[in-house]
Amino acid sequence: MNRKMATCEGSEARSVLSRVPPLLTDLYQFTMAYAYWRADRHNEPAVFELFFRDNPFGGGFSLFAGLSDCLLFLQNFAFSDDDVEYLRSVLPADTDAAFFSYLKELDCSAVSVSAVPEGSVVFARVPLLEVSGPLAVVQLLETSLLCLVNYASLVCSNAARFRLAAGPRRRLLEMGLRRAQGPDGGLTASRYTYIGGFDLTSNALAGRLFGIPVAGTMAHSYVTSFSSLEEVWPQTLVPCGGAGSVDFICLVKGWLGRVCQILGSKTSLVREGELAAFLSYAIAYPQNFLPVIDSYSVSWFSVPQFESLIIVGTNSISEQSLAELSKKENEIDVVGVGTHLVTCTSQPSLGCVYKLTEVRGRPRMKMSEDPEKSTLPGRKSVYRLLDADGHPQMDLICLSEEAAPEAGVSLTCFPLGLNKTLQTVTPAQVTSLRLDVFTCGQITFPLNSASESRERAQISLQSLHPLHKRLQEPQDYTVVLSERLHSLVSDITKGNSKGSNFLLSN
Amino acid sequence: MNRKMATCEGSEARSVLSRVPPLLTDLYQFTMAYAYWRADRHNEPAVFELFFRDNPFGGGFSLFAGLSDCLLFLQNFAFSDDDVEYLRSVLPADTDAAFFSYLKELDCSAVSVSAVPEGSVVFARVPLLEVSGPLAVVQLLETSLLCLVNYASLVCSNAARFRLAAGPRRRLLEMGLRRAQGPDGGLTASRYTYIGGFDLTSNALAGRLFGIPVAGTMAHSYVTSFSSLEEVWPQTLVPCGGAGSVDFICLVKGWLGRVCQILGSKTSLVREGELAAFLSYAIAYPQNFLPVIDSYSVSWFSVPQFESLIIVGTNSISEQSLAELSKKENEIDVVGVGTHLVTCTSQPSLGCVYKLTEVRGRPRMKMSEDPEKSTLPGRKSVYRLLDADGHPQMDLICLSEEAAPEAGVSLTCFPLGLNKTLQTVTPAQVTSLRLDVFTCGQITFPLNSASESRERAQISLQSLHPLHKRLQEPQDYTVVLSERLHSLVSDITKGNSKGSNFLLSN
Repeated sequence: MNRKMATCEGSEARSVLSRVPPLLTDLYQFTMAYAYWRADRHNEPAVFELFFRDNPFGGGFSLFAGLSDCLLFLQNFAFSDDDVEYLRSVLPADTDAAFFSYLKELDCSAVSVSAVPEGSVVFARVPLLEVSGPLAVVQLLETSLLCLVNYASLVCSNAARFRLAAGPRRRLLEMGLRRAQGPDGGLTASRYTYIGGFDLTSNALAGRLFGIPVAGTMAHSYVTSFSSLEEVWPQTLVPCGGAGSVDFICLVKGWLGRVCQILGSKTSLVREGELAAFLSYAIAYPQNFLPVIDSYSVSWFSVPQFESLIIVGTNSISEQSLAELSKKENEIDVVGVGTHLVTCTSQPSLGCVYKLTEVRGRPRMKMSEDPEKSTLPGRKSVYRLLDADGHPQMDLICLSEEAAPEAGVSLTCFPLGLNKTLQTVTPAQVTSLRLDVFTCGQITFPLNSASESRERAQISLQSLHPLHKRLQEPQDYTVVLSERLHSLVSDITKGNSKGSNFLLSN
Repeated sequence: MNRKMATCEGSEARSVLSRVPPLLTDLYQFTMAYAYWRADRHNEPAVFELFFRDNPFGGGFSLFAGLSDCLLFLQNFAFSDDDVEYLRSVLPADTDAAFFSYLKELDCSAVSVSAVPEGSVVFARVPLLEVSGPLAVVQLLETSLLCLVNYASLVCSNAARFRLAAGPRRRLLEMGLRRAQGPDGGLTASRYTYIGGFDLTSNALAGRLFGIPVAGTMAHSYVTSFSSLEEVWPQTLVPCGGAGSVDFICLVKGWLGRVCQILGSKTSLVREGELAAFLSYAIAYPQNFLPVIDSYSVSWFSVPQFESLIIVGTNSISEQSLAELSKKENEIDVVGVGTHLVTCTSQPSLGCVYKLTEVRGRPRMKMSEDPEKSTLPGRKSVYRLLDADGHPQMDLICLSEEAAPEAGVSLTCFPLGLNKTLQTVTPAQVTSLRLDVFTCGQITFPLNSASESRERAQISLQSLHPLHKRLQEPQDYTVVLSERLHSLVSDITKGNSKGSNFLLSN
């Protein structure tokens, strides 16, 4: 196994992450921006929030990831002249030319963001990112932010589930590059599965850019490329610390006889090409011999001298097969996972949404006949309440102007969901879930390296109660609204049910 | 709907496609390259081929895509000094320093590729790409080529299935950016779903880079951002070609009464904020009015004046729901598809493999206890045999030194699969499936634009017999081996079964 920890992420990693161009968004963001501009509403202060509606994979939690990418995207947000000329060519011919001048000047200098730190355990319906700024600008950011958070959080959460299924001892190797959505899908997968709890990646570029330890085995093609022992070179070797060269081929033939005797096999059954391949590999890697033996006809063996070998298992590993593997006694040290990890087979998308919650200081709410699709109005704060054992007990969403809850002080709140009634809780500890990460165009929170986010994920997962971490049928985590937020929702909904417009509460 | 065709792909598109760095590969490619180099085998001429084992989505065919990306990757293949220093830091400390000097000089000037043109209909087990060159170099290319072909071909084939489900009339809009595997997963999805038969994308950058027509509707946030008719601006408009301004709000209120009368509804039930949003949008887009009405409480209506409206349907559309939709009479003109299209929910990976078939002019074969996992030895040619109606009838794989089959001349062959017996066929037409696309480091085939590859896909799909195109339970397409190739497989397999090494037939 060839691996070594690179120490930090360099400027090149930054430039890879930050190269998301602002044109990488849905066209309708521009058509809406123009409509706001046309109505002279583009500079109205507005607030959007980003959240997902269900924990992925039928699980009880998710990990939040993609924040560093979002911050770099915001910091570099600006349209080139070519971008603007392209937009001029696709928007209707009667679009006011002054709008394009406006686009050329646009940046995120009036935008601020509060967010959950990358790697945190998060739950459905809790706003993870709050983006405030001029209405047209924060509208334009929607698709890019969703794109950066959705897959990163999904694959990171998937990795965390594989880690839980594997248990803490076994090392996990991500090897999904060839099955990812193109080159950068693969790079994203390597970064965020590492944050989610994998130990190693096969992706050399991810190793270089993000400091992820890299590892690899051997391909079948290497084995099939050999046909005879004559291809082994050199045929003689000088022993380590010894004097005089030794005929390596003769030595191997001698050992082969002894091994075959132990295994009760015949040396005539050994394929010379395979033997030549393994010998050549051993010559190249005297300290790091790791041959591939899967798919070949091999008898499983138990030879005392082999106990120090590292065994890597790979074979279309899924979360379920990994969990099965972990239940049994076996000698596998490292498990390599590709397709099921990076494509998130059992749920290939997270479904984050980005919803308007406030314009000009007035709360906005999208109502829907499906209550799950309604949004929570107003600018908010989010707190995590911990129990006496330090486990997260519930997340509290309240209006930003409300006072923070206090440890040891009881509070009344409404669980999210239909027909839930008022309940009282006394938290042992209270933490604010989101931090100010971007203020008026400047990144105000350290850009975490992959290993820093990975450490946060481990700590965050450790504190989570085992019932919420269960891979199957986890206990639902409670998310509650403050009484004031709950009242605001009721007021707006009632206002709406009388056929009036969305009610404005203040 | 705002769309316009950009005319060609510029140099910037090329640079996006070609930026796949050669370090974006699995580490084991380097460890194997070193082992070849250590055994002085790195310059032995070798041939690999790329294929997939099963058509995706339970279908009868696939579309081949990703070729332009592969060619640009090969043309630019070279390691930077920083790449090599990184590799030095992760390979074992006793790796010979001369190997790193060798890597610094490496390029694809001795590599040649023959390939199926992008957009062609292809089938399982047929080698799509043949890569020949120095053993260590063509080994190093494996992961990158697989990464570039796998998702491109998968999502392109998925798009073709959506197109078949939709029928030819309805226009299809790809809108999956926010659900793709990060920014470039989204860009890849937009390009290859267009090639597979979509008409439009919501992704503005894909529009600019690849000349794909772009389209968009309106987000809910635009609607919820309005609360009263006072926000509509301007409130008066000058009629097209008319003189004197008109009070637009009064005019709308008048029309609203008449529409409500037709619908048997009350004007008091209309939400003023929604009305304000639609009016503002209409002011911004007098010729391109396309409001979002899904998720809102709307009565379906039939008003004569509305017949000229373009109706776009979007709601987590899958291949199945699209097929259902197409069976019914309805007025939907454009269908927008996101998640299920770009994530390929029903099969999120294609599983292409890259296998060694020849070294130093001698055929190589990987044998496996699972016959499906065995490979076909030797350097090959692939022909498509057409029947008298011009439909592809079967694909013939033979050794490259064999003469091409001729139209009207009968030939004997063996269908792939277990226990298949010799059969005779007389093709009405014969075409060579692969072309020389890269010769000794130079691209020797035009780099097709997205629209050129899309046109090939349409022509290729049109000629395919409907039985092979059926989305459910398609008829199996026949892939056959020439007698000589079949003999070679038998000889090697028998040689193997006697316990000897892989037999070399010539």
